[in-house]
Amino acid sequence: MRPDRRTLARLVAPWLCLGVIGSTTAAFAQDTTPAAPPRFNIVVFVADDHGQDTGAYGNTAVKTPHLDALAAEGVRFAHAYATTASCSASRSVLLTGLHNHRTAQYGHEHDYSHFQSYANLRPLPVLLQEAGYRTARIGKFHVAPADTYRFEQVLGADQRNTVDMAERTRAFVSARDARPFFLYIATSDPHRGGGTTDGTRTGPDRFGNRPEGYPGVQTVTFDPADVIVPDWLPDTPATRAELAQYYQSIARLDQGVGRMVQVLKDAGVHEQTLFVYLSDHGAAFPGAKTTVYEPGLRSPLIVRHPQARRRGVVSDAMVSWVDITPTILDAAGVNAPTYRQHIASGEVKASATLPDTHGLHGRSFLAAMRGEALSGWDEVYASHTFHEIQMYYPMRVVRDRRYKLIWNIAWQLPFPFSTDLWSSATWQAAWKGGVDSAYGRRTAGRYVQRDEFELYDLEQDPHESRNLARDPAHAQTLATYKARLRAFQERTSDPWVLKWTYQ
Amino acid sequence: MRPDRRTLARLVAPWLCLGVIGSTTAAFAQDTTPAAPPRFNIVVFVADDHGQDTGAYGNTAVKTPHLDALAAEGVRFAHAYATTASCSASRSVLLTGLHNHRTAQYGHEHDYSHFQSYANLRPLPVLLQEAGYRTARIGKFHVAPADTYRFEQVLGADQRNTVDMAERTRAFVSARDARPFFLYIATSDPHRGGGTTDGTRTGPDRFGNRPEGYPGVQTVTFDPADVIVPDWLPDTPATRAELAQYYQSIARLDQGVGRMVQVLKDAGVHEQTLFVYLSDHGAAFPGAKTTVYEPGLRSPLIVRHPQARRRGVVSDAMVSWVDITPTILDAAGVNAPTYRQHIASGEVKASATLPDTHGLHGRSFLAAMRGEALSGWDEVYASHTFHEIQMYYPMRVVRDRRYKLIWNIAWQLPFPFSTDLWSSATWQAAWKGGVDSAYGRRTAGRYVQRDEFELYDLEQDPHESRNLARDPAHAQTLATYKARLRAFQERTSDPWVLKWTYQ
Repeated sequence: MRPDRRTLARLVAPWLCLGVIGSTTAAFAQDTTPAAPPRFNIVVFVADDHGQDTGAYGNTAVKTPHLDALAAEGVRFAHAYATTASCSASRSVLLTGLHNHRTAQYGHEHDYSHFQSYANLRPLPVLLQEAGYRTARIGKFHVAPADTYRFEQVLGADQRNTVDMAERTRAFVSARDARPFFLYIATSDPHRGGGTTDGTRTGPDRFGNRPEGYPGVQTVTFDPADVIVPDWLPDTPATRAELAQYYQSIARLDQGVGRMVQVLKDAGVHEQTLFVYLSDHGAAFPGAKTTVYEPGLRSPLIVRHPQARRRGVVSDAMVSWVDITPTILDAAGVNAPTYRQHIASGEVKASATLPDTHGLHGRSFLAAMRGEALSGWDEVYASHTFHEIQMYYPMRVVRDRRYKLIWNIAWQLPFPFSTDLWSSATWQAAWKGGVDSAYGRRTAGRYVQRDEFELYDLEQDPHESRNLARDPAHAQTLATYKARLRAFQERTSDPWVLKWTYQ
Repeated sequence: MRPDRRTLARLVAPWLCLGVIGSTTAAFAQDTTPAAPPRFNIVVFVADDHGQDTGAYGNTAVKTPHLDALAAEGVRFAHAYATTASCSASRSVLLTGLHNHRTAQYGHEHDYSHFQSYANLRPLPVLLQEAGYRTARIGKFHVAPADTYRFEQVLGADQRNTVDMAERTRAFVSARDARPFFLYIATSDPHRGGGTTDGTRTGPDRFGNRPEGYPGVQTVTFDPADVIVPDWLPDTPATRAELAQYYQSIARLDQGVGRMVQVLKDAGVHEQTLFVYLSDHGAAFPGAKTTVYEPGLRSPLIVRHPQARRRGVVSDAMVSWVDITPTILDAAGVNAPTYRQHIASGEVKASATLPDTHGLHGRSFLAAMRGEALSGWDEVYASHTFHEIQMYYPMRVVRDRRYKLIWNIAWQLPFPFSTDLWSSATWQAAWKGGVDSAYGRRTAGRYVQRDEFELYDLEQDPHESRNLARDPAHAQTLATYKARLRAFQERTSDPWVLKWTYQ
């Protein structure tokens, strides 16, 4: 991509800024551009386990007026994908531009899982701060070490009171400071939690909803009869009861988005701010979260770029969460970091043929954020290994517009459940019917015990219900996609690439 | 155990010492004991992948005069067990007195495995330092974070030149300092490494041996015809060639032990020093290392206590590496730490019935180190989960004098191999014969694909070749040992205990 004048201005902007805050290296920039434009503030708003369940994405039962308004003013990405449907792992991807098999955030950071990213990573907040941004985070973090993913400020909040969270950013957003800001705001909505509605262990989860509500938040409830049960879930009273709770949590989340936008407007910085809304991955239902099926990976991504040329755009570019950091760095005119291929001791890399260094795994789709059409964005990859540490189930995925290949590396194991998904009313209602009971377009048994390779023709079979991997008519397709998957693993230093050779 | 006068003196000694180094709390001690005896120095000498292959343990082909001399002057433990046959994990156990499912050092620390222990652990060197010891380590470390497992001094060395390693401790050992010392010296011998003898990828490993030898070390070579092939290995030219290299590495290790003793004698502190020799676990051959079979867990433990009442003792107490830290703390008169049952976020513990805090998982066998007989030491437990991070294979073990139960939690998976064990000449020579080829008392196929439960009668079947778990005659025994295993997991907060209930 050849840089135009605007791109050049962005590229040199950090040098100018560094000049302002203590250096004198702006001379170079003055030779090539008349003046650097002001740099945008950046807000990344991250929901927790929110699928594409919004009005903007076509769900007519849930109520998300603020997210819908954001989409009307910005760009909605129809084909946005997490690379892993697990909270810690996905956030490490979002914040680094690397697949989690290269961040070492292979699974949960908290409690006994205790996965820790490499201390020498250079995540987005660090790079932006070094380039002259002031940085703050509020809400769910879930990556470690904190010093590696460091923000200048850490703001306290009740992560379920999304409106209060937005309010608590007001001082940071309004601060009289010449530097642009980077704000990372992450809710716990609409994650499961807070007990069950009937008090039993396997009753419908509350998804953070409380009978007494939350101060400043309007409680929006839903009738289980009115929810839309997606094809990948069984249409049972249990599922409907849980979806109603999930929607209520989404409605609270949505109000937080609205208040966040209002805080930007009140501070007079809305038109100088790039606003990115996304979720770490899909909804906390068996069939989505912790899987690499479409409902697990496919996520909302709605962006408002202040200099967008068009409004209310739907982008069909296939983007994934490894692209978020490269894109934001591009927006800020900051160079992406380069990493040594050898990770720690210098002993191991995935392939002897790799170069000594590598850049980020994703790339910038900034033009699409401005509402421009993008070509050449027709495939995504996914890499999931753990959720909790006892949930070892490495999966690698290549997906393009037609086919999707999943490699279940430990396919011999039953698919592992997190505690909350196992005991969920939705799952238990199906599981008590045995392995042959229906669970969406699959049986419960097929959900638990999977084939080593799953190949789907998504044009013919969008619900991934007919595995073509053993179909002789698709042998060549299978071979082609296996080769693409292995090449992906090789070039991204995936430690699990050795499983092609031996156990 | 009621403390005798000597024990009381040890218990108060740290208070005295703290008084010397900056406090005035010695008054309490003066009320109860006439005077604290001088405290011992402590040397823990840790070999890398050394099975019980020494003259002292009955191997007549290997040459270990220094280890044999140590056994003649001290106590040799015939039934000493690692709790996991993986380097990082086992060292975390040695240094904390906790099973590695409670240290979070679930597998390798280095490179992409990147397992890190909990930062709030209080390992042996920290406790000893706080109690007035000066501390140093030299050689292989392999646990993280370094600040958690901190030693006052870190001495540099070539971890293969064991004699030079001992020499490099001379200044520390001889230092004019009123404090007793704790020295942790860990070799890389007799680990695999350094290429193959014939230069091919699957040729016999060098085990660190070099044609040019090591300065100050006598090179002792072995004829493959003379080595003793244990029952658990196939008697092939490849195995013999590798055992000869392994023996050569052990002979180098042994010289390091000898030099270490000499350094203590030269400094005039030999009779004030408790000397503990052990290995992290068994030998680096398939069938031992990374397994929980006897050759993997059973390890050398030879101790010279300066106040031993008898010399040349063989103890038949069943001890394991969780007992090492409690025993050394006991020897030093230092209280063992207490930990909160809830590990990090406060959300999870293995059982709601557990108390809020717990002590170490092991207990002191100090009396046995002094050559006294011990009763009530008739069972050990083991807990292994990973070696490298792609090698997920959780196993839990209870073993007493007659029976051993192994729970292979992910039994559906093929047993995973580390790179070096997979490509080892010993394994490849067997594997090329197919799954039915003999590998020790098993077939190669049975080694790779295991039953969920393995129950062995070690009196009748010391080589663990006849699994009784499906034998109706042993159903009651199986049930009894399953219950013991689960109770062990419950009381030690094992995250994998949930696998009894669901996946």
